[in-house]
Amino acid sequence: MNNRPLILVTNDDGITAKGIKALVEVASEFGEVVVVAPDSPQSGKGHAITLHSPLWLHKSNIFENIESYECSGTPVDCVKLAKHEVLKGRTVDLCVSGINHGSNASLNILYSGTMSAAMEASLEGIDSIGFSLMDFSYDANFEPSKKFIRHIIKEVLENGLQNTKLINVNIPNLPESEIKGIKICKQADGQWVEDFKTNIDPFGRKYYWMTGEFLNHDKSDNSDILALSEGYISIVPSAHDLTDYPALDKLKGLEI
Amino acid sequence: MNNRPLILVTNDDGITAKGIKALVEVASEFGEVVVVAPDSPQSGKGHAITLHSPLWLHKSNIFENIESYECSGTPVDCVKLAKHEVLKGRTVDLCVSGINHGSNASLNILYSGTMSAAMEASLEGIDSIGFSLMDFSYDANFEPSKKFIRHIIKEVLENGLQNTKLINVNIPNLPESEIKGIKICKQADGQWVEDFKTNIDPFGRKYYWMTGEFLNHDKSDNSDILALSEGYISIVPSAHDLTDYPALDKLKGLEI
Repeated sequence: MNNRPLILVTNDDGITAKGIKALVEVASEFGEVVVVAPDSPQSGKGHAITLHSPLWLHKSNIFENIESYECSGTPVDCVKLAKHEVLKGRTVDLCVSGINHGSNASLNILYSGTMSAAMEASLEGIDSIGFSLMDFSYDANFEPSKKFIRHIIKEVLENGLQNTKLINVNIPNLPESEIKGIKICKQADGQWVEDFKTNIDPFGRKYYWMTGEFLNHDKSDNSDILALSEGYISIVPSAHDLTDYPALDKLKGLEI
Repeated sequence: MNNRPLILVTNDDGITAKGIKALVEVASEFGEVVVVAPDSPQSGKGHAITLHSPLWLHKSNIFENIESYECSGTPVDCVKLAKHEVLKGRTVDLCVSGINHGSNASLNILYSGTMSAAMEASLEGIDSIGFSLMDFSYDANFEPSKKFIRHIIKEVLENGLQNTKLINVNIPNLPESEIKGIKICKQADGQWVEDFKTNIDPFGRKYYWMTGEFLNHDKSDNSDILALSEGYISIVPSAHDLTDYPALDKLKGLEI
């Protein structure tokens, strides 16, 4: 008999990343954990899916006593394979994605494989949480995050997500004692301004390598970027209906 | 002197696809067209960007008398390179993406490279339109679409998008005379139910190949799926703030 919740864990940094290990450790305190994660780093893959080539899925022994699989595809592919193959016929109580190495606040939700994996699970009707720590280094320290992730997972398992299905949790890179608390926020209105570094490859061809700077345009008092800058963990409840409803009437002139 | 509007054209099916050729032809009637499109098919790439490897950009002669570039990256990479390198310092008046081979109605906006390219341009403040024809075959017939695309581009160049920045246009695969008109719609609430085809690769390993069926859950009278099924072209004005605002108060219990 097993009445513990079933928790799917995935990420975009790949199954060997430190962040997913920390998340598996916390999630295991609450239920049966199954991991389906990419076999290689998939940062910035957004909501990409693999349509025109096959996918491979291999059992992994990376986490002791945890059923784990590594997948050749994107984070969203991982969730689709988890739902429709690995966990076919079973009810998934929660999907947690991360802990991402680096921020997914503001519009980064659009580019992030971590958030897209969580969003994909939410499209399947599964309560889903994406966790990100604001430190993109391989060796980021996830220990201070654990207490807060424990709190959030416990609350969501007990009380659900109140008609929303997806939350985007970002955690400042601070010692536990300096994290001031958790705030429910809106997605900050911001923008990336790209700066492409150029150089010549070994074949004499010019190449471009994307870098950029994030500009926060949001002046509201409840944006995720503001909360993070003040030392709070931000939680943005997120939807996947992109319809700009106020525009429906305004664009009637396009109809024929 | 050149006062014609500057129109950026991109897609996700690649610079050699029939759909982008049709779109370049129509866009050229209205302004100076610059094409930056992927050098290979990028369907389903969503909002993926290339962070961890370089990008290449080559001048292309594929369209006569049109400044064109093919890029090794994703559709979103193409738009970023177009804005920050190819067209650096110039004001882009409109970005059109497509014509996609296949529908991007309902939640397909999340998976679609075509729509993500248009969305990326809209994040840069550029009025943007994604066009999709409901026929995913290589040899799809884009001729009946042209009259309607002409109407939409003309209207948007003359009147703008009224505070929205992005519209998702889907066109039924019908003869021109059977297309009933154009309707402004909401994104239908639907879901993909995956079915993975499995087989054994030449190395003896099991592989999975994604297929699926779209389920429309939307009962409203103004969804894009409904309009398309009735023979109308659907236009969904789309946003990129994913915040689920009604949930902001409901989730206050998560705060500490």
